[in-house]
Amino acid sequence: MLTHPVVDGSLPRRFRRLWDEIAPIGRDERSGGYLRYALTEPELRLREWFRAQADQRDMPVTDDGNGNLFAWWGAPEAGNAVLTGSHFDSVPHGGAYDGPLGIVSAFLAVDELRASGASPARPIAVAAFVEEEGARFGVPCLGSRLLTGALPPGQVAELCDQDGVSFAAALGGPPAGARPELLDRVAAFVELHVEQGRALVERSAPVAVASSIWPHGRWRFDFTGEGNHAGTTRMADRRDPMLTYAFTVLAANKEARRLGAHATVGRVQVEPNATNAIPAQVTGWLDARAAEPETLAGLVQAVHDRAAERARRDGTGLRLTRESSTPLVAFDGGLANRLAGLLDAPVLPTGAGHDAGVLAGHLPTAMLFVRNPTGVSHSPAESANDDDCAAGVRALAAVLEELT
Amino acid sequence: MLTHPVVDGSLPRRFRRLWDEIAPIGRDERSGGYLRYALTEPELRLREWFRAQADQRDMPVTDDGNGNLFAWWGAPEAGNAVLTGSHFDSVPHGGAYDGPLGIVSAFLAVDELRASGASPARPIAVAAFVEEEGARFGVPCLGSRLLTGALPPGQVAELCDQDGVSFAAALGGPPAGARPELLDRVAAFVELHVEQGRALVERSAPVAVASSIWPHGRWRFDFTGEGNHAGTTRMADRRDPMLTYAFTVLAANKEARRLGAHATVGRVQVEPNATNAIPAQVTGWLDARAAEPETLAGLVQAVHDRAAERARRDGTGLRLTRESSTPLVAFDGGLANRLAGLLDAPVLPTGAGHDAGVLAGHLPTAMLFVRNPTGVSHSPAESANDDDCAAGVRALAAVLEELT
Repeated sequence: MLTHPVVDGSLPRRFRRLWDEIAPIGRDERSGGYLRYALTEPELRLREWFRAQADQRDMPVTDDGNGNLFAWWGAPEAGNAVLTGSHFDSVPHGGAYDGPLGIVSAFLAVDELRASGASPARPIAVAAFVEEEGARFGVPCLGSRLLTGALPPGQVAELCDQDGVSFAAALGGPPAGARPELLDRVAAFVELHVEQGRALVERSAPVAVASSIWPHGRWRFDFTGEGNHAGTTRMADRRDPMLTYAFTVLAANKEARRLGAHATVGRVQVEPNATNAIPAQVTGWLDARAAEPETLAGLVQAVHDRAAERARRDGTGLRLTRESSTPLVAFDGGLANRLAGLLDAPVLPTGAGHDAGVLAGHLPTAMLFVRNPTGVSHSPAESANDDDCAAGVRALAAVLEELT
Repeated sequence: MLTHPVVDGSLPRRFRRLWDEIAPIGRDERSGGYLRYALTEPELRLREWFRAQADQRDMPVTDDGNGNLFAWWGAPEAGNAVLTGSHFDSVPHGGAYDGPLGIVSAFLAVDELRASGASPARPIAVAAFVEEEGARFGVPCLGSRLLTGALPPGQVAELCDQDGVSFAAALGGPPAGARPELLDRVAAFVELHVEQGRALVERSAPVAVASSIWPHGRWRFDFTGEGNHAGTTRMADRRDPMLTYAFTVLAANKEARRLGAHATVGRVQVEPNATNAIPAQVTGWLDARAAEPETLAGLVQAVHDRAAERARRDGTGLRLTRESSTPLVAFDGGLANRLAGLLDAPVLPTGAGHDAGVLAGHLPTAMLFVRNPTGVSHSPAESANDDDCAAGVRALAAVLEELT
């Protein structure tokens, strides 16, 4: 039985070959970006590809009942496993690397270890987590939050996408929720991810180790007004929620700059969204992040207060809802320093949330970042060159060897 | 042969009976508003209803090859016809009365004239114009503009809706374009419409005659930036087009108030429109109107200049496109005064565009407005009571009798 693909050609070339297998899946030809929403057709094809890759490597695949997949080298019941991997799903018109790089690199790291004749003392599992971006059901890291029990499965089952399809319907049944007996078998988790900034470009290094994830969250601002005719309604008679929304967008930007934090309003929904109608309702989503929890709380409060003041002037209504919130994640400091020494790599914080941030509350967790020449992410301009991706695979293989 | 339905019950009750036949068509149960986009299923059902009503009244229906329907009482070839009617299509979640009231009232006015034993010396035609709102193909008064030659049919054929369906495909073939020989047969056009303001409430009158339509138009602002990750991109490194959009929304409002004009940004489209992504592109549509053309031009220029200045600060791109523009329409003054005298009704200007505004450039045209208690339009809150609608039918019948 062929237990692993023939390892021929240089690692950058082997990376490119595997990468090209998935590159066309879910790509929008117009934007060059990806539409790989969780459990939709493109992501289901990527899951099939995952099973095929695991099969080629004689790694049995298990499913945790929440949509997360695990391919095992070594018996799961042996315990003390080291888990690696990432996610397949994308934001709308997202980049190729955010997520899939961690899964492709994990399979190639297994190949590296096998080619070097390594025979790990503990199981290694490659994971594909479901709905990391929250682009379909609105809550990021949905799969890892279900697995760890951070979200109740009954509530997650009823989350609906824009077409009214529930998570349970997309999954083919209600999610299983927390799986402590599965987590108990895992001793550590390492997620490799493309960098989402330019720190590695500035440091001329291909790979970094993560120190922490900023606390962050999503807040929905519902502004209600009075829908009316754009041509005939006197300016003084209007209650136009688009004005309150616009003011809030600018206020969020100003407050974030003042506090040294990050604030973004990148999503808006308007009813009825017609050129010749004053909107009846405008909903904007605030993504806010800061190095310290106090700064984040102060930022959201300040944006809310300024929005509420403007709503009074506009005669509009405002309702603020926290849709998700992730506390500060400090990755295992001992582990990060050990890996940074092993790899001779810098240690960096990040503003982006990851499944590793969720798992870090339950087991020793680390992250590796691979250099991104544009520094751009969540966009078709996201990039990584094959040599850096190969360096990432080698780093991940070294980390897995060290941990097993 | 039954040439018209039995006229029994009071006119308000007969209005209500006919009105209830179409009330459920295209209504969204959640909002209570209507989704009657041109040539989609609900609007096609309303066209079938139009043909059935015409048939019951023994009024043959002709089609001008542009999607506009005409039901004739009297031979079209006789010439010197008086045309009345309006449109079926709605804005998204629009009200029930904007458009359909003019068609239902026209059929009831024919019934009134017949019941009174009138036998008009000229033909009377009831019209249903296509795509008056521009909610599906982006250009308002599309049907009347095609008929009068204001828009080239080749260009209109290729206008696409949000799903990429062209106007020609929706129509079942390329539009015919200008029909001067058909317009030559029409001596006058009268459109009855629900009022889109509260002037009649303030004057305690059920019906008014229109004096003019403000010059108005639609301008598309395309703001381009750099799509990026909301969590990891430093505020100073961003080129966020949502900021330029938000500034422009507020600037349009301020400039309109300063100039005594109307400006609305009620429609926006964002790429990728994801919570955790800085947008790559934001498009906003400006609806602007003013009593004088110079004020309107000054308003649009001022909004553009302020948007361009902000775009420079945000590092974003701005492209301004005029999507449609309608000059000042002064309805035939002699006709308006004659009808106001006949009906003892006030004469009012309006900020709303109508097919009557397009036809006014080609033949003597008048408009009647029916009182709207809320003053609200392009919204489910739009209203008119049955007694006022009956008063509108009587006024229209009187006008038709006078003109024929």
